[in-house]
Amino acid sequence: MRKAIATVSLSGTLIEKLEAISAARFDGVEIFENDLLFHTGAARDVRRYASDLGLTIDLFQPFRDFEGVSDEQLRRNYDRAERKFDLMEELGAPLILVCSNVGTEVSDDDDRMAEQLYGLAERAGKRGLKIGFEALSWGTRVRTFDRAWRIVERANHPHLGLILDSFHTLALPDDWSGIASLPGQRVFFVQLADAPRLGMNALTLSRHFRCLPGQGDLDVPGFLQAVLASGYTGTISLEIFNDDMRAAPTRQTAADSFRSLLFLEERVRRTAEAPPADGAKRPRRRVELFDPPLPPAIAGLRFIEIAVDERSEAALVTRLTQLGFRLVGRHRSKEVTLYGQGDIRIVLNREPDSFAASFFLVHGPSVCAIALDTDDALAALGRAEAYGATRFSGRIGPDENAMPAVRAPDGSLIILTDPETGRDLDRDFVLTGDAPAGHLSRIDHIAQALPDGQLDSWVLFYRAVLGLEPEDSVVLPDPYGLVRSKAVSNAERTFRLPLNISESRNTATARLVTSFAGAGVHHIALETDDIFAAAEALKASGAALLPIPANYYDDVAARFGLDAALVARMQSLGILYDRVGEGEFLHLYTTPFEERFYFELVQRRNGYDLYGAPNAPVRMAALAALRGPNLSQVLR
Amino acid sequence: MRKAIATVSLSGTLIEKLEAISAARFDGVEIFENDLLFHTGAARDVRRYASDLGLTIDLFQPFRDFEGVSDEQLRRNYDRAERKFDLMEELGAPLILVCSNVGTEVSDDDDRMAEQLYGLAERAGKRGLKIGFEALSWGTRVRTFDRAWRIVERANHPHLGLILDSFHTLALPDDWSGIASLPGQRVFFVQLADAPRLGMNALTLSRHFRCLPGQGDLDVPGFLQAVLASGYTGTISLEIFNDDMRAAPTRQTAADSFRSLLFLEERVRRTAEAPPADGAKRPRRRVELFDPPLPPAIAGLRFIEIAVDERSEAALVTRLTQLGFRLVGRHRSKEVTLYGQGDIRIVLNREPDSFAASFFLVHGPSVCAIALDTDDALAALGRAEAYGATRFSGRIGPDENAMPAVRAPDGSLIILTDPETGRDLDRDFVLTGDAPAGHLSRIDHIAQALPDGQLDSWVLFYRAVLGLEPEDSVVLPDPYGLVRSKAVSNAERTFRLPLNISESRNTATARLVTSFAGAGVHHIALETDDIFAAAEALKASGAALLPIPANYYDDVAARFGLDAALVARMQSLGILYDRVGEGEFLHLYTTPFEERFYFELVQRRNGYDLYGAPNAPVRMAALAALRGPNLSQVLR
Repeated sequence: MRKAIATVSLSGTLIEKLEAISAARFDGVEIFENDLLFHTGAARDVRRYASDLGLTIDLFQPFRDFEGVSDEQLRRNYDRAERKFDLMEELGAPLILVCSNVGTEVSDDDDRMAEQLYGLAERAGKRGLKIGFEALSWGTRVRTFDRAWRIVERANHPHLGLILDSFHTLALPDDWSGIASLPGQRVFFVQLADAPRLGMNALTLSRHFRCLPGQGDLDVPGFLQAVLASGYTGTISLEIFNDDMRAAPTRQTAADSFRSLLFLEERVRRTAEAPPADGAKRPRRRVELFDPPLPPAIAGLRFIEIAVDERSEAALVTRLTQLGFRLVGRHRSKEVTLYGQGDIRIVLNREPDSFAASFFLVHGPSVCAIALDTDDALAALGRAEAYGATRFSGRIGPDENAMPAVRAPDGSLIILTDPETGRDLDRDFVLTGDAPAGHLSRIDHIAQALPDGQLDSWVLFYRAVLGLEPEDSVVLPDPYGLVRSKAVSNAERTFRLPLNISESRNTATARLVTSFAGAGVHHIALETDDIFAAAEALKASGAALLPIPANYYDDVAARFGLDAALVARMQSLGILYDRVGEGEFLHLYTTPFEERFYFELVQRRNGYDLYGAPNAPVRMAALAALRGPNLSQVLR
Repeated sequence: MRKAIATVSLSGTLIEKLEAISAARFDGVEIFENDLLFHTGAARDVRRYASDLGLTIDLFQPFRDFEGVSDEQLRRNYDRAERKFDLMEELGAPLILVCSNVGTEVSDDDDRMAEQLYGLAERAGKRGLKIGFEALSWGTRVRTFDRAWRIVERANHPHLGLILDSFHTLALPDDWSGIASLPGQRVFFVQLADAPRLGMNALTLSRHFRCLPGQGDLDVPGFLQAVLASGYTGTISLEIFNDDMRAAPTRQTAADSFRSLLFLEERVRRTAEAPPADGAKRPRRRVELFDPPLPPAIAGLRFIEIAVDERSEAALVTRLTQLGFRLVGRHRSKEVTLYGQGDIRIVLNREPDSFAASFFLVHGPSVCAIALDTDDALAALGRAEAYGATRFSGRIGPDENAMPAVRAPDGSLIILTDPETGRDLDRDFVLTGDAPAGHLSRIDHIAQALPDGQLDSWVLFYRAVLGLEPEDSVVLPDPYGLVRSKAVSNAERTFRLPLNISESRNTATARLVTSFAGAGVHHIALETDDIFAAAEALKASGAALLPIPANYYDDVAARFGLDAALVARMQSLGILYDRVGEGEFLHLYTTPFEERFYFELVQRRNGYDLYGAPNAPVRMAALAALRGPNLSQVLR
């Protein structure tokens, strides 16, 4: 489908917006009046520049508080409209959005409103322009698309049509199935926005918290499905009022926006192509919908790669050894070593002039790449590129050859391996020994800290590019501010990626982001099937574990009614506990490695499917305590 | 009254919180269970440290989901309570807060709930502890203080009483006048919080947006008035769940919190002392309420002082000269000069080793002090100090002698002058000439940019210390993010101070904060009674005015139906226009001075009482355009 976006959705000056919209491959743009007002330069220059950039100007908006007014006011409104029509002619915008009146004195008479809109359409028609009427969900009289449609139908003017907006439709509890029965050719434009359910009124939600389709909780795919059923074949356009997006980098937002529309199209296409449950005939599709390769099946993490220098490598090897890892291979030609335990592989890369070396320069010792075990690496790469991910084709680490890779939003690499390419690890390394069995078997999850305002962007990336799905969002109180966490994972839970942002600049999560000069993995969770044995071994190795307050164990015992001996054993080893239904989660943390990341050991029992969020504040307070004074020092 | 605060209201570790609470002069503290859980150290050490700091531990909280449960669950709840009682004994906390059950299966039977609470009180009583029952506004059965009270009354146990919370009471639409008729001795504790009206449900509002009394929209003074009428003489305690406060500097929040309680007490006292309208007898007061000197009457700004060095002084003098200022005095002994026009006085201070010099070092050329023309400078100083403002007694600028001054929250100075001390200006300066009449007569307002999260803190400061009142808050779209603005002013509008925070790090406002290393005055608005003449003169002087886009004038003409000749004249001079009712506002801006601040010229007609907020986005876009590319460059 043709794709557009309203300028109000992006940060920046009008020029920056147009350039970013063009770079993101949109077809058209809605010009929000304020963007023009505050712009130094003539409207016809905007038209020319948009055209140079390959963009059409599809719509000009908004025209407010028009219908249901007194005759006196109507005259003024017509005058006001003529001025806007002048502007539209200069811009080359064929359509103006008239949103329903939110004034205090508005007639409730459909005939009157229809008549006034007819008059406006008549004036527009003389100039070859069109009027689109849209119901705001907080309009004084007209709040629903069906009332707006009744009025448009009554007015019955070829230059007057309906504009549909997914936010205004889905934010109200009303039934919106009637959209499918509208005559699609009378729908002049379709605006799309999603929104989270935040327990606030539609106006506040709309002005500050709209988000891209797929980032919120509204049924935007169902809405678009209904729109297509009406026979609409026009443009879909994003109109997102969002405080974070107003402040985010313009080009990134534009790229995310385009990706969200592709992802929406794919979802709608897949639903439409599913065999109808009741054997009914599938409706004919009149528009092309995005059709990328399917997301890969992900069996797990084949390896993670950590950028190091000589000094940090030595320190990290000590840590890994304490955790039971052994050197299992050395790269045939490069300063790259391979450590293993069970099915876990960790690559340490200190090769000069490599991607890892440049990553190290910016981020210090840190995870610079993860390699996914997929069923078809080339198909996965195709999908990623179709969704606008950047392919990486430099020297990517252990294998010089053909391991496909794309960049994650922070610039680190996602390497795509499959049963074919997976063998490359053995090929490129001189294997020095078998990986020990040890207590740790696989990587359970890797948690990332992101800059504030970036969570939605990353979630969309992983959904679209890798087919992961978001889990429920949780808010975690760090002593110095709130941290929001949302994991993305595949259905089999063989790949889990908790993403964290800090609302404050002072939390441990925020400090990681700052020191990482962007996002960064802040912990690597390794799975064990016997956490007590693993913890004993870790302790015996001399590893430093994160100290957990005794008060925590009093509470956990009371909360879950745990056996005293068990609690005492957990306490002696710094093991934390969570339970949901029958599922149990036991986990512990090492102290941070150079303030960059730490290791977590986790044991999942009886299908526990989360990350121990109730214990996250304990971890964050313990991290804070490592830095600050504690009572025993204060009291002496 | 005794004053306390819940640890959850502050950022930091438990130790940092206790130290800040003590430093802010609170009497007691509520320990929020999580703070203890995540704390490394025994509960009895916390008790000892609090005691060392002069704090009592007044309450332990919360104990959740207790009442209205099954017998089986009740047994578990009693067990759980005994563990918490153990902890309370170690802490020395006499009272536990039991908040109403929010579970899904809760009996609706008051007798049953009363019986269960009786059982709990009986157990607490054996240890000399007390139970306070509080209605959460989203409780499953018990949502209002009066239902909670009916249950407490029915249980009728001396160790069971009521806890009142202003948020839970005022967030619901219910009538709460019954509080005044409660038996005050059965109210065991009173928690206070305010909240803005944000159009969201009580739970979301409560968890993230509570604020200090005087920072929100709830009638907290009325609530406290009712509480006092009940005969309550106990502690008032702040329980504020607020995302910004969780991230703000702990000591500052604690100081603000204490100030808010003082301010609340003063307001309640003043209301109570007003002669009753109906001649009724004034109720006897049983507690002492804070009684500081009255706020000063402020006639205006006597002068503003700008810290400069030699280079920036020369550049600024050029600007001032263009604006019509003339040198009117030189300090008798220091590198300080005085510029004047009409009633406006601007002091330029480049005296080495002075306050201004140290301010310059951190902030660059910027407003380092403002001097207020008050009716009684010493009384104003007394009030400021009573509210915890820091008195400044170094060398403060033009006058070495006795001009009282306090520090604003950013460390700049508020100098307090009165008809007595005001004469000092003439005394300290060798006057070199009369101030020219010119087009500019007085300072209309000075606008400050504040770091994000600091707006509420500053508003409270100016309300308490200077008796200013906040005006309505507005949201202004900068091209790179939203800016929130709220002015504080006196009733006579002789002193106006718009305060702005940027939600994004990329706006002009945010850049000013960053470059200012804190807050800073970003524009100085000067009043004229003929803006056209003033603008002509300014233009003739060669001053650089902020360029305003032509599109703005098309729109303003259409919006207000302005005469074309008038609009043309405004456009030729870069004058902006706003109108509210009969009031008109005409204003223009200079370009920024060294990216620090700019001057605004304003003319108010027919009682216009605002700041031209609809034009602020034009200004912000124009500031952004000064930095970025514009279309004429792009198109060549």
